[in-house]
Amino acid sequence: MHGVNSISTNPDERAALLQRLVAPVLAELEQTEAVLARQLSSRYGFIQTLVRHIERFRGKRLRPALLLLSARAFGGEAPLATEVAALVEMIHLATLCHDDILDDAATRRSVPTVNAEWGNKAAVMTGDILFSRAFEVLGGLDDARPYKQLSHTARLICEGELLQIASRFNAGLTEEDYFDLIDKKTAQLFGAATELGALLAGASEADGKKLFLYGQRLGMAFQIVDDCLDLMGVETTVGKSLGSDLKNGEPTLPLIHLLAHAETATKLDLLRLFTPGNPNLTRENLRPHLERSGAVEYALKVAHDEIQRARDEIAFLPESASKEVLHDLPHYVLARES
Amino acid sequence: MHGVNSISTNPDERAALLQRLVAPVLAELEQTEAVLARQLSSRYGFIQTLVRHIERFRGKRLRPALLLLSARAFGGEAPLATEVAALVEMIHLATLCHDDILDDAATRRSVPTVNAEWGNKAAVMTGDILFSRAFEVLGGLDDARPYKQLSHTARLICEGELLQIASRFNAGLTEEDYFDLIDKKTAQLFGAATELGALLAGASEADGKKLFLYGQRLGMAFQIVDDCLDLMGVETTVGKSLGSDLKNGEPTLPLIHLLAHAETATKLDLLRLFTPGNPNLTRENLRPHLERSGAVEYALKVAHDEIQRARDEIAFLPESASKEVLHDLPHYVLARES
Repeated sequence: MHGVNSISTNPDERAALLQRLVAPVLAELEQTEAVLARQLSSRYGFIQTLVRHIERFRGKRLRPALLLLSARAFGGEAPLATEVAALVEMIHLATLCHDDILDDAATRRSVPTVNAEWGNKAAVMTGDILFSRAFEVLGGLDDARPYKQLSHTARLICEGELLQIASRFNAGLTEEDYFDLIDKKTAQLFGAATELGALLAGASEADGKKLFLYGQRLGMAFQIVDDCLDLMGVETTVGKSLGSDLKNGEPTLPLIHLLAHAETATKLDLLRLFTPGNPNLTRENLRPHLERSGAVEYALKVAHDEIQRARDEIAFLPESASKEVLHDLPHYVLARES
Repeated sequence: MHGVNSISTNPDERAALLQRLVAPVLAELEQTEAVLARQLSSRYGFIQTLVRHIERFRGKRLRPALLLLSARAFGGEAPLATEVAALVEMIHLATLCHDDILDDAATRRSVPTVNAEWGNKAAVMTGDILFSRAFEVLGGLDDARPYKQLSHTARLICEGELLQIASRFNAGLTEEDYFDLIDKKTAQLFGAATELGALLAGASEADGKKLFLYGQRLGMAFQIVDDCLDLMGVETTVGKSLGSDLKNGEPTLPLIHLLAHAETATKLDLLRLFTPGNPNLTRENLRPHLERSGAVEYALKVAHDEIQRARDEIAFLPESASKEVLHDLPHYVLARES
């Protein structure tokens, strides 16, 4: 297998690539960072400590960057954009925080997260305060569109997370189910970010909708690649622990494709493997099957197609540095497998 | 000790009392119930199951009743009131859901809650979906005030919950800290309910503010009585398991008063008792100290004073059946100790 299996870009190179890409909105991203720092502060010491701890999730700020680039692509002034970009990131951070909640079994593994250090309840409340603070600030804006859009998106994200829990060890999960799940869990917030960026810069509703589709498709591709990496990536290269989808019994696109197209004997083997608590359910044991079946190539092809469709959605934009970045950003998403 | 110690009204009698009290808004409460049922449904089987499970919290609907009574007290039409009443209850249910999250230690005790049945994560997500669905619906209303008010309130509730976690086994917690904590955790949502009821029925901002203070003070009294019951109530009479504040090391008003006024020797005994994991930290061991010190009487006096101030806030309302209920509702709050 080419692709995921033979990752060449390391995390530093990827970070540098992203840094180059977001250059047109670097100043706004710094302002967003300042808004975020202000929102994550509290006069209560304990709350400050917990909320600050979520800085461990300090990521690529991909969603704020997408929002700001989308605004810039429409040229106009977008005074609310940096603030809304920070709030989008807060919602994302809140979901990461709740994603960290461990179930009884997992608790014993003792991961160094908020919940491991201060108990599950503190982790829940930290996520809650990020969520509620984001909605509070959104509610205070003069423009009602961001809170309408993002409170809708937040509900879809929760629904996606619940669908994911419901999908555990469901070997019958269809591609359609999976696409619905990752759309809600991931792609909708990408789409909300790019749509809001456009609208805040004065885009028409119709153009906003196109930017939504751009972000949504990019988000789908992003999640599919992420799921491929969880099965096939090299931990040191990807820069995070992998295989957790499999451990949790969450079927992702390669596995769904593999199960749907395996011969009866192989399929029975796989079904025996894909059971809760089975110590043989490892990436290593699954990999030969995945390689033989071309399931990962299939999944990456789907991601590539989504990205092509994303690019088609923004073809109408006038030429600009920002449009170019929106066109090139998918490189970053796919860099992890190029 | 009179009061909490000698509860005479049983849960059924209290329910009947509340039922009589809310008679003026019974029709609206039924509509609220229908809104709630609609909002708690989902086309996804698993989500439906989880969300339906929160019906176990099926409570007194005290907050919706307060909102509807406040609206009625201003006489005007309040078409949004039943919907907002349901959303206030959803936010309350979401916090109950997250309040149920168990820490590592507590998990082993295996309480039959969402988290025990489907894991902590499902409990978190159930709360999240209630929260986010409430804000989604609020975001879709024509009137921006409920969204603004309740997103602010939700943040304060989260802050209160975090302050409560931070207060665990803090024998130095002051009365002021405690009042701040229960104001955020409980009283603010009562105040938001009564203020929104008034505003949605056309009250002026100034009158809305008075109704807020009424609800807030009633909420303070409610929480203080609740905390007294946790220490002194009889489980079979109160109708729920008690003593959990103490087990969690959460100092409540009687304990704070006791610690602040105990003689040195007693205080040292109490400080030794009030330590994490101490098997002697029981209601039974604390009770003689509480009875000797009059700490519970003190706390109940504070609750009574809050209720008197709550009543003063609504003295300006024109006479009506609803005003009478708002005046008498505190009886219900205090019934548990009368």
